[in-house]
Amino acid sequence: MKNKILEELKAGKGQPVSGEEMSKRLGISRTAVWKHIGKLRNEGYSIESQTNSGYKLTGSPDVMSLSELEPFLKTEFIGKNIIYLDSIDSTNIYAKKKAEDPFREGTVVIADEQTVGRGRLGRNWVSTKGKGIWMTIMLKPDIQPSDAPKLSIVAALAVANALRSCCRVNARIKWPNDIVTGGKKLSGILTEMSAEADEIKYVIIGIGINVNMEADDFGQEVSNIATSIRIEKGIPVLRKTLAASVLLEFEKIYKVFEKDACIKDFLDDYKGRSAVLGKEIRLINKKEEITGRAVDISEEGHLVIELADGSCREVMSGEVSVRGLKGYI
Amino acid sequence: MKNKILEELKAGKGQPVSGEEMSKRLGISRTAVWKHIGKLRNEGYSIESQTNSGYKLTGSPDVMSLSELEPFLKTEFIGKNIIYLDSIDSTNIYAKKKAEDPFREGTVVIADEQTVGRGRLGRNWVSTKGKGIWMTIMLKPDIQPSDAPKLSIVAALAVANALRSCCRVNARIKWPNDIVTGGKKLSGILTEMSAEADEIKYVIIGIGINVNMEADDFGQEVSNIATSIRIEKGIPVLRKTLAASVLLEFEKIYKVFEKDACIKDFLDDYKGRSAVLGKEIRLINKKEEITGRAVDISEEGHLVIELADGSCREVMSGEVSVRGLKGYI
Repeated sequence: MKNKILEELKAGKGQPVSGEEMSKRLGISRTAVWKHIGKLRNEGYSIESQTNSGYKLTGSPDVMSLSELEPFLKTEFIGKNIIYLDSIDSTNIYAKKKAEDPFREGTVVIADEQTVGRGRLGRNWVSTKGKGIWMTIMLKPDIQPSDAPKLSIVAALAVANALRSCCRVNARIKWPNDIVTGGKKLSGILTEMSAEADEIKYVIIGIGINVNMEADDFGQEVSNIATSIRIEKGIPVLRKTLAASVLLEFEKIYKVFEKDACIKDFLDDYKGRSAVLGKEIRLINKKEEITGRAVDISEEGHLVIELADGSCREVMSGEVSVRGLKGYI
Repeated sequence: MKNKILEELKAGKGQPVSGEEMSKRLGISRTAVWKHIGKLRNEGYSIESQTNSGYKLTGSPDVMSLSELEPFLKTEFIGKNIIYLDSIDSTNIYAKKKAEDPFREGTVVIADEQTVGRGRLGRNWVSTKGKGIWMTIMLKPDIQPSDAPKLSIVAALAVANALRSCCRVNARIKWPNDIVTGGKKLSGILTEMSAEADEIKYVIIGIGINVNMEADDFGQEVSNIATSIRIEKGIPVLRKTLAASVLLEFEKIYKVFEKDACIKDFLDDYKGRSAVLGKEIRLINKKEEITGRAVDISEEGHLVIELADGSCREVMSGEVSVRGLKGYI
């Protein structure tokens, strides 16, 4: 009923809506209307009461439910089904459970808070309530499991593009899929898949973006390696417009990718946003540690490193540090 | 307590165990001992009561709990942790849920019955209570996600070897991982994995073997394409010895495979058991239908098909039918 009242107020398009008329249309008492108005105010909606004319919606909170996101969402299928959660352990964990049953392609799980948000390799990801975008896109791409890692490339470029177009943040991509600015992490992506031997059952792409967090939210240690749009720009940002922008950018690139599991058509864009190409780097993965210069990203999405002896190595996974004045960071 | 009594009886090694002594050792009444003996009899244990000397265990049911399997199990780590379930939707579904939390490498989920047993490509798999081996091996192999499909090759060879050594059934492998005899399916394998972009989180290998089912258990339609060891040999087979044998054969081959994700060392064995090599076949997968002669299986585990024009095609997935007198079956 609360949501129906919200719909009534939104239908007013900034004009007051009579409490009496709402009570008649919805078949509830005027007192009940008044109580639900109170609940909406508690959730952050600004609602003016005007004697003799009714209630006027003057402001909506930065909530990322479907009804709040929809006016901003210009996609065809990504985010057309949104599961909005107030608080959850992790949107990826939730999405994986959901994905065991049939789901609509492009379903997006969004949480206002993650209590055990995770980054790559099982690392912790600070996911402060109401201050970031913590969401997971659920897909069933018709590609080979071996092509699934390329989806991290798709997602990273989408986030970088959205940050630029929506927030004028010139973030760069630290291969494969961290988004950084000034050497600090602004966003991370965690792609997971479930596959039978030769067929993908589902891919879920978790995207975390630090939007309105302040230094205190990270704690001292994480502050050294993480930042937020608010910290970088000095002003808070409306999360729902950015989330809608990420989903739109993602859809654009994903539609190109899905045709033949090929990243060629947007690889130059990706390279142009790279934080590592041309830099002296150190790469660490489970099997080795490589020092050299990042010289290319292949059509497989692999990083090409030129070693001291002039030879090149192509690696498909690992953690990259870029050499700066104070060593590799 | 029931299990403790069972342990006491087993410790007797065929000699009667005094009810009074058990009641003292376990700190329960003699009536309680007697009640638990009754429960064990209901589960299929043969227990003789002998006046003045006690209870003697003379036969165990074909139950695949750890305590029943253990005497037959000669593995180092596969099946050293067994989760035995009386009835479950599907051992793969159960294993996937379990695998989201840390688990012991080689844990095996075994069910006496699956209510929604599944084969490859989401197909139904008849899993009659008490008449087959329905189990899932849980692994965390240190290999690339792209190498995971090779584990189906490992599992298929293990099942074929166990059927030969344990039941003298000369079953053949229909690439990639069905086990057939006389053109009918005796066993199926469903390998599923969960991976981050470039790292396997877990692989689960579901193995279904039709052991003691009779034609009625399949129903008329399935009877045309499926068979059981009992139907083929005319006698019932003890499931636990076969299950233990499959796990042992699997462990042997898996240990070779895991070193470098390579199937080369046992590929000739696999080829020697193939039901398709040298045959005129039809292969259907999501993208194409190919008719030709199966001439090889590559070190990637792919099927090599010689086409009518003499050229060869290598395919990584698909459903194979072999041409017989009545067309492709």
